[in-house]
Amino acid sequence: MEDEVGAGQSQPRPSAYRTGRMEAFSDGVFAIAITLLILEISVPAGSNENLVGALVDLWPSYLAYLVSFSTIGAVWFAHTVITEYLDHADSVFVRLNLLLLLVVSFLPFPTKLLAEFIHEPGPERIAATVYGINLLLSMIMISVTWRYAVRAHLVRPDLADEDVKTLTKRLTPTLGVYVAMILMGLVQPVVAVFGYLALALFILLPFSAIRRRPRST
Amino acid sequence: MEDEVGAGQSQPRPSAYRTGRMEAFSDGVFAIAITLLILEISVPAGSNENLVGALVDLWPSYLAYLVSFSTIGAVWFAHTVITEYLDHADSVFVRLNLLLLLVVSFLPFPTKLLAEFIHEPGPERIAATVYGINLLLSMIMISVTWRYAVRAHLVRPDLADEDVKTLTKRLTPTLGVYVAMILMGLVQPVVAVFGYLALALFILLPFSAIRRRPRST
Amino acid sequence: MEDEVGAGQSQPRPSAYRTGRMEAFSDGVFAIAITLLILEISVPAGSNENLVGALVDLWPSYLAYLVSFSTIGAVWFAHTVITEYLDHADSVFVRLNLLLLLVVSFLPFPTKLLAEFIHEPGPERIAATVYGINLLLSMIMISVTWRYAVRAHLVRPDLADEDVKTLTKRLTPTLGVYVAMILMGLVQPVVAVFGYLALALFILLPFSAIRRRPRST
Amino acid sequence: MEDEVGAGQSQPRPSAYRTGRMEAFSDGVFAIAITLLILEISVPAGSNENLVGALVDLWPSYLAYLVSFSTIGAVWFAHTVITEYLDHADSVFVRLNLLLLLVVSFLPFPTKLLAEFIHEPGPERIAATVYGINLLLSMIMISVTWRYAVRAHLVRPDLADEDVKTLTKRLTPTLGVYVAMILMGLVQPVVAVFGYLALALFILLPFSAIRRRPRST
Repeated sequence: MEDEVGAGQSQPRPSAYRTGRMEAFSDGVFAIAITLLILEISVPAGSNENLVGALVDLWPSYLAYLVSFSTIGAVWFAHTVITEYLDHADSVFVRLNLLLLLVVSFLPFPTKLLAEFIHEPGPERIAATVYGINLLLSMIMISVTWRYAVRAHLVRPDLADEDVKTLTKRLTPTLGVYVAMILMGLVQPVVAVFGYLALALFILLPFSAIRRRPRST
Repeated sequence: MEDEVGAGQSQPRPSAYRTGRMEAFSDGVFAIAITLLILEISVPAGSNENLVGALVDLWPSYLAYLVSFSTIGAVWFAHTVITEYLDHADSVFVRLNLLLLLVVSFLPFPTKLLAEFIHEPGPERIAATVYGINLLLSMIMISVTWRYAVRAHLVRPDLADEDVKTLTKRLTPTLGVYVAMILMGLVQPVVAVFGYLALALFILLPFSAIRRRPRST
Repeated sequence: MEDEVGAGQSQPRPSAYRTGRMEAFSDGVFAIAITLLILEISVPAGSNENLVGALVDLWPSYLAYLVSFSTIGAVWFAHTVITEYLDHADSVFVRLNLLLLLVVSFLPFPTKLLAEFIHEPGPERIAATVYGINLLLSMIMISVTWRYAVRAHLVRPDLADEDVKTLTKRLTPTLGVYVAMILMGLVQPVVAVFGYLALALFILLPFSAIRRRPRST
Repeated sequence: MEDEVGAGQSQPRPSAYRTGRMEAFSDGVFAIAITLLILEISVPAGSNENLVGALVDLWPSYLAYLVSFSTIGAVWFAHTVITEYLDHADSVFVRLNLLLLLVVSFLPFPTKLLAEFIHEPGPERIAATVYGINLLLSMIMISVTWRYAVRAHLVRPDLADEDVKTLTKRLTPTLGVYVAMILMGLVQPVVAVFGYLALALFILLPFSAIRRRPRST
């Protein structure tokens, strides 16, 4: 009802409010998932005698930590871009968002797998594959959420069509590269893991280029 | 005092503010409870030789994770619906809300129980019963909180009576189904767990229908 | 600078903003501390044969969980009352607030102690004492923070002197009862723990009475 | 686009919004990192007979907890100061902020190291060094973030040049002292740890002096 009456700031209030709680909840889940990662790294027993060696031997844990931190950071960043261009949410969007959070908050488990098995010839391929699939699912959910927002006209009306297209385009190719990296992980797991790191950093890059545009024009 | 004087935005400030912190705190608890669930899943020792098998054997953990994630998501969703229709809170409401959070943040414990015992003939019934009771209590608290808000006139005055009734009605039948599922769990625990999953998804559904209405009219 | 110029909403912005982040950060710490408590409860090994018995034997864990949850809830509630009556914060207040958070986020450790030792004649007194001291320190910090806010004129100017007095008075006696309970804990630890539960519930009570007053008048 | 048109509150909305989510996410990470620290302290097995002794023997854990809590508190405080003087963020700033969060959320690991090895002649130097380097990196990131904000003109235009200089100056010397303490840690690890505590408290001090100034003038 008040939606119809108000003008300017106060008009989209109920939806804005709902978006507010969805964002707060999402920020909470992202922040916790990203901070819990460190709990998985523990000093191996009997490291008193050679602590430096024991710490160096933990490199798979540091690597997995770095990749997962970067990926969750990238997903969070993409999420802020999406919600920034959102005029309001609807119930499907909220549910898609929950699915995205499900996938992201599952990531600490494959991270643990990867840290534990990356230096063991046999299981490291399985660990890298499981890990890659989880990353791929996160990115698919980001893409699906955005595409749904565009199709359901949830996006801010003042956003130029070309900006929408640019954003959609940027989101698409990474999916293919994730699939390629998963296949790579079956042969060269460590290469794949560095590929995932590069992908996360790449995602952090192009979004920023889009983000700045609406401001400078 | 200033409640009586102000107009527009500034009038309901003290209560709005209080609702703000209650929501922020609740969002925090929901987000943490939902993200902590993954910590309970750990790779069993000696899984180097057959990692795929070990990962498949963890299916009760994944199932418990999925059900608990969906249920906490559904409770969070119901909570946003309630607070969205809230004009202000009072001290009883804040305490009922704390009780709701108590019940929700306890859930990781029965989730762990369920994951550990779901494939063991004897104790799986007990685990499923304890789990179901915790879910039931969460839903009772959502229902109680909403009913209290309506009775204590905390609900926004511009909300139509029929919408209030619809919301109350939607919340009620699930309680009966939860009780039925708890009884089912004494005989067929795995069926009950899938029932809990279906219930959580069902709750995520009807709320959305209500939510959209005030906007489109 | 802009503090002097603006009027209405925009005048107290820098301080309000600062209060905003202090509240968000505090809400985060309270929410995490209260939700982490459940992680300390774990099913004892070898409970397959008699799961009901094993679950019943965990009663000290449930009790400790309940008391700590209620106390952190009460401290959070008191904290929202304080910040609601706060006009702005200063740097001493922010540091006192950090000290309060330090004490509150330490609580999971004594909670674990209590859960582990409450049924062992010797160490249960020590556990109950350490626990009680931590609770006492939390309440002292709430009291100190409030008193500092009053003395440093951080409290909203429209708050009546008698309301300030009422609030200060309500906060004081509980400290004495906490000291009494700590002494009681040296003789009857279980009685003391139930005393702590009663105290937390008591704190949740009177604050509400104060809170409603400014609104109804 | 709307940046150019609007006046007053609504003008810097997109940037303000983005800053809002960056702050919420950062507050979440800081709050979780600071609250997780307590999970690392666990009662040693077999402490039934002499619980007081066992609790006293945990002093390295308490000390590490205190230093890490104070440091994260100080970093959070510095972060609120930076964002308070921020007019808007850009994409580089958001990425620098993620790097800061990476470094801060890594801290629980060296804290665990320090707590475990501080009383063992050989490895305690390594633990203290790793710990000190992590603290130094946190402070470097705070400094880098602030300097970038100044250089990229992200700082509020109404902030006096001398205030910018004062803030920059205050941030610089602590870096040198952190380096000195890391070197000290190679010889006297315990002294270095107390030095880190003093540094965190020192950082909490001068910022407040700056903070109050814009308000009192």
